[in-house]
Amino acid sequence: MSKFFLTSKLLKVNNKDGDILRILRMDEDSFYSFGEAYFSTINMNSIKAWKKHSDMTMNLVVPTGSVGFVFSDGQTYESITIGPKNYLRLTVPPGVWFGFKGLSSEINLVLNIADMIHSDDEVERKEKNYLNFDWSLL
Amino acid sequence: MSKFFLTSKLLKVNNKDGDILRILRMDEDSFYSFGEAYFSTINMNSIKAWKKHSDMTMNLVVPTGSVGFVFSDGQTYESITIGPKNYLRLTVPPGVWFGFKGLSSEINLVLNIADMIHSDDEVERKEKNYLNFDWSLL
Repeated sequence: MSKFFLTSKLLKVNNKDGDILRILRMDEDSFYSFGEAYFSTINMNSIKAWKKHSDMTMNLVVPTGSVGFVFSDGQTYESITIGPKNYLRLTVPPGVWFGFKGLSSEINLVLNIADMIHSDDEVERKEKNYLNFDWSLL
Repeated sequence: MSKFFLTSKLLKVNNKDGDILRILRMDEDSFYSFGEAYFSTINMNSIKAWKKHSDMTMNLVVPTGSVGFVFSDGQTYESITIGPKNYLRLTVPPGVWFGFKGLSSEINLVLNIADMIHSDDEVERKEKNYLNFDWSLL
């Protein structure tokens, strides 16, 4: 049990022509409302950090590749690696610092289904060295 | 202008560490409501066809690979190939027969953001040869 995010195990159905991977349904507890969906790709060994949303709740899944996420309150850190081999949804409430790193040489693709439309007004951004996390641990 | 689907051009922002690809925002005309989001993968040269939803409106994007979609009323056909190189969203109303084919040796990934939760009760399924489309055209 994390103090920074909620994990939900998602159904994956394998089929000879291709798979089905569930993401989010409106009747799930971790669905609040739909605001915007967008993809972020992250190159292998690249790091995007740090950001903190003051209002947005994110729902994050990684259907291809492998992505290491780090969450923090500025003092303690929690990390988790997700992708098709560990197919979980991360629900991240506002007020949490986060960053992520691409871990696969395949396309590392992050889908965020957010409960509001992205706005620069509610995002705080800091440089990588603002928080003291050792990214080589991922 | 298609009689079977609506296309929306989507913003793609390139960045040295990875890209941002917009998908759907609640303030867009082609957003009705959020019901469920799920991924389908389709292997190269595999075909998934035919299906028709009686109630669901689909919003389809392809962030990796390349996927050829075919839409039909049973008599006429329209096809379109989408992927990161032709990054469009297809909004498909209920009542349209559709199928799709994987066209890339990379992972062909389809995201559907649907306006309702998937239910087998509102999906009609037929075999590939039910409609007379020549899939080698894709």
